[in-house]
Amino acid sequence: MPDFAEPLARLIQEFKRLPGVGQKSAQRLAFHVLRSSREDAERLAIALVDVKDKLGVCAVCNNISDGELCNFCRDPHRDQSSICVVEEPHNILPIEMTRQFNGRYHVLHGSLSPLRGIGPDQLRIANLLERIQSGEVQELIVATNPTVEGEATAVYLSRLLKPLGVKVSRIGMGIPVGSDLEFADEVTMGKSLENRREM
Amino acid sequence: MPDFAEPLARLIQEFKRLPGVGQKSAQRLAFHVLRSSREDAERLAIALVDVKDKLGVCAVCNNISDGELCNFCRDPHRDQSSICVVEEPHNILPIEMTRQFNGRYHVLHGSLSPLRGIGPDQLRIANLLERIQSGEVQELIVATNPTVEGEATAVYLSRLLKPLGVKVSRIGMGIPVGSDLEFADEVTMGKSLENRREM
Repeated sequence: MPDFAEPLARLIQEFKRLPGVGQKSAQRLAFHVLRSSREDAERLAIALVDVKDKLGVCAVCNNISDGELCNFCRDPHRDQSSICVVEEPHNILPIEMTRQFNGRYHVLHGSLSPLRGIGPDQLRIANLLERIQSGEVQELIVATNPTVEGEATAVYLSRLLKPLGVKVSRIGMGIPVGSDLEFADEVTMGKSLENRREM
Repeated sequence: MPDFAEPLARLIQEFKRLPGVGQKSAQRLAFHVLRSSREDAERLAIALVDVKDKLGVCAVCNNISDGELCNFCRDPHRDQSSICVVEEPHNILPIEMTRQFNGRYHVLHGSLSPLRGIGPDQLRIANLLERIQSGEVQELIVATNPTVEGEATAVYLSRLLKPLGVKVSRIGMGIPVGSDLEFADEVTMGKSLENRREM
């Protein structure tokens, strides 16, 4: 490795710890910071620390929040009768992008994984139960990932919550829009057949 | 755009200002920071500011440096009789990677560009002249970029410095190793023919 001045080498090292950033990208980013103004570098530095210091989780839904309640739980225009359950806070984003869901969320912060020692007690299910027992919730859309863990979590939640009189649904699985049948694996193709709809 | 909590939205915004980072990458980086420890975020933040605060340019060669002299100018094992001239500090890296050059460097911090109002006075040529007049330098390798501006800078330096009795050479241009003639543009192919070597 060539001889970078210590602060530059350290910045490259730190950039490399970010996901998807290799040696070359890290160098490019570091040299960019070097060329840009001190104010720009400082703004990024402050934003980094602020994210760690000023954010917590929403008391109702466990989403990331800068207050007691997150933006969704604070918003009176969002439907209280429908809750979409996701594994991680960043899973909310693709759902919001559809503009088709106007309910609230619930973030589990993980999924059931006996192999990694993650059981129901490690997930934030207790306050989901409370929300449902309060009686306002009518439908629960389980949007955990279509993986073994996500599927197991969905089945667990369905068995736990259906007896409480709430409708539990699972997001649809099938061929992605714009894709080609050629590229579908057999499990996805099977789900797609299973989920066929009359036209 | 979905409703992110303010510190998170701000971090995404700041990441997006980096080169090659779009909305999706910025979100991925920001959520990564959110999941990682406060120490990790702080180390990156400190490295960002340190790069701006602790680095200056080498008094001899204008390379980035954390002291009066850069690592290359400080190193007594590097050949003082040979200087490689580059446009920007990050241009040193690909040359070092070859492990074929053991001389010193000179960073111009730009290239001649009359259209953008950059003449010889805007480049750091004065201290290059001083270095050559000191008498130790025998060869100057001009490794400015193979662009119109880099070429113009190379020609200018050659005319300026040859009369001082120093050998001025230009890096070779031609077909990149591992490439295919099919993809070569006519100028590169022409250079490649011009630079042919007897076998």
